[in-house]
Amino acid sequence: MGVIMPAHPIRCRDVTSAALRARRDRARSAARSLGVDAVLVTPGPDLRYLTGYDAIAMERLTCLVLPSDGEPTLVVPELERPAALASPAADLEVAAWTETEDPVAVCAGLVGDGAARVAVADDMWAEKALRFAAALPGVEQVAAGVLLDPLRARKDAAEVEALAEAAAAIDEVHAQLGDLLRVGRTERDVAADVERAILATGHVRVDFVIVASGPNGASPHHLVSDRTLERGDTVVVDIGGTMPTGYCSDSTRTYALGRPRPQALAEYAVLQAAQQAAVEAVRPGVPAEQVDRAARDPIVEAGYGDLFVHRTGHGIGVETHEHPYLVAGNDEPLAPGMVFSVEPGIYRPGSHGARIEDIVVVTDVGVRRLNHRPHDLVEL
Amino acid sequence: MGVIMPAHPIRCRDVTSAALRARRDRARSAARSLGVDAVLVTPGPDLRYLTGYDAIAMERLTCLVLPSDGEPTLVVPELERPAALASPAADLEVAAWTETEDPVAVCAGLVGDGAARVAVADDMWAEKALRFAAALPGVEQVAAGVLLDPLRARKDAAEVEALAEAAAAIDEVHAQLGDLLRVGRTERDVAADVERAILATGHVRVDFVIVASGPNGASPHHLVSDRTLERGDTVVVDIGGTMPTGYCSDSTRTYALGRPRPQALAEYAVLQAAQQAAVEAVRPGVPAEQVDRAARDPIVEAGYGDLFVHRTGHGIGVETHEHPYLVAGNDEPLAPGMVFSVEPGIYRPGSHGARIEDIVVVTDVGVRRLNHRPHDLVEL
Repeated sequence: MGVIMPAHPIRCRDVTSAALRARRDRARSAARSLGVDAVLVTPGPDLRYLTGYDAIAMERLTCLVLPSDGEPTLVVPELERPAALASPAADLEVAAWTETEDPVAVCAGLVGDGAARVAVADDMWAEKALRFAAALPGVEQVAAGVLLDPLRARKDAAEVEALAEAAAAIDEVHAQLGDLLRVGRTERDVAADVERAILATGHVRVDFVIVASGPNGASPHHLVSDRTLERGDTVVVDIGGTMPTGYCSDSTRTYALGRPRPQALAEYAVLQAAQQAAVEAVRPGVPAEQVDRAARDPIVEAGYGDLFVHRTGHGIGVETHEHPYLVAGNDEPLAPGMVFSVEPGIYRPGSHGARIEDIVVVTDVGVRRLNHRPHDLVEL
Repeated sequence: MGVIMPAHPIRCRDVTSAALRARRDRARSAARSLGVDAVLVTPGPDLRYLTGYDAIAMERLTCLVLPSDGEPTLVVPELERPAALASPAADLEVAAWTETEDPVAVCAGLVGDGAARVAVADDMWAEKALRFAAALPGVEQVAAGVLLDPLRARKDAAEVEALAEAAAAIDEVHAQLGDLLRVGRTERDVAADVERAILATGHVRVDFVIVASGPNGASPHHLVSDRTLERGDTVVVDIGGTMPTGYCSDSTRTYALGRPRPQALAEYAVLQAAQQAAVEAVRPGVPAEQVDRAARDPIVEAGYGDLFVHRTGHGIGVETHEHPYLVAGNDEPLAPGMVFSVEPGIYRPGSHGARIEDIVVVTDVGVRRLNHRPHDLVEL
């Protein structure tokens, strides 16, 4: 057919019209303060965040036109009108274009004359942004992340509860890993069961499944392989999915098949302390990089600094990776409502690796952990 | 973890280094002829096509820098280096950047001074294209589709065989629909079985599943719902996935649960003739829109013109939708090696719908059909 769609669409249930309208109002206000006359948002997390409409990016243009002073319009292909009207975006003015019309011209008309600067969604396809540039000559384009990322980074109470629900669901999957990880099974066998469990625990999409056993655990971005699990392996299991609310889960635990070698145990003890220290460093006003430092310092001190090869965490919400990023150089202060992963790891190339990852929320006074599975290295 | 990955990565197996190099050479030659000094390609179908590397678009930059006169470099995050080196892109110069470096500056350096125009992948995130624009002041950006789409549209013999393999796999799934579609089951039940069948027949990804029964069939982009199948329903089943080769399948058949109403039978007879006529219209040199017209004319003639609300087809390859598009206004001549869907439909709002879709290849002298399931409306 003439469309590509996710096998399991996100319904964005549980988000109220009032909440969506408030988000759009905040976006317009941020746009005005940055001298942006309109925000153009194609399908993706930003569109879900602002309208509750889960459309997929494709060659046919769907675009929210959000003028900083004026009412928003959702421009959709005629074929997608029923889908748009079946979503929370039905509250908006919806303008449908037919197969022989130019939707870029329709959007440009809605931006209006006299615009000097528009913001385009960070993940808008460049081809579409270039068509907008041609249709709006002399109008400067900026990446909409500048104004939308700070809004998306601070979750309201309903969003935090949606993320808590997602975390509880992925915790349920981790609770099954003790049964799934067995000597003689392959990583791929385990991953297939994990995928089923992710869907069975209420997610509508499997976003990623890492089952990294033995030496594969030393590669932070290993996915799965046909490697057979062996006695003595440590296994890094990092999994996540999207819930019907549109909010995501992401959690890592490391498991041991029998007694791990002493070096792995020593590293794990340091890792566990580092993760705990990083979570405890989270509170309003603290620069994001300080959480990274809190995780990194004990690992460096123990002599494993070279083995912790990635940042400490990333924000999570309607996207698995979003602001804020917990990385050296990001001095952005943490603020209540920010939700992110805290996930240091220690990777010994060719041998083994370990990572512990929880999602946490910055509260008014400190931190709330959303994942609750035990941190101890469990021998299976 | 710090990365989002597909649960089932595409390995791009079966593509030779020589074929990939030939594609890059053709791209460079096309770039030169368009005055483009370098092509910048972020993860997506273009990157798979040019390098065989299946990476997923994310905030961390992965980018192929392909100078029109000079050797290509694949710029990747340090964490992704093992994945890149495990892919066919290992043939390329791979430059890895660490978490505190600026990868845009690295790429800009590879573009070199004196560049006047760069092409950016159509689906590059606008945020990244804007960062390239800032790092390469005064350098014009064009959408790389201008030069890559015509290359991707014409498949070589190995690509055609990969698409034939994908078509055979989805045909196998359609062969099971007679057992899966049963009065009393919901569309969602059937879709879940179809998804499993798509993976069981050799696909590594389910791209979309439409099971549109009774009145839902009248909405071309209906996905699935909790509607229960009833006696007398016609059911539009439009399904597709991606094979380990990276090439996609996409095929639609319409099924009947018992005797359909006479109006549906009359429309189906016209649809079947229209689809046949459109396939027969395919040969080298014919403008793409003529295939659309060949499908549309008999439907209009029968008085159903208003009920055929979409274009007749789309190219397919490493992406389910790519060039060429079979739509009024596209006078691009068909050429040997082009592969696309031929999928007219007739949709009676509120009542029922039907669509027949095959993937076909333009040969040196005419057309070859890749899907082989029968077209007759089968009463189940």
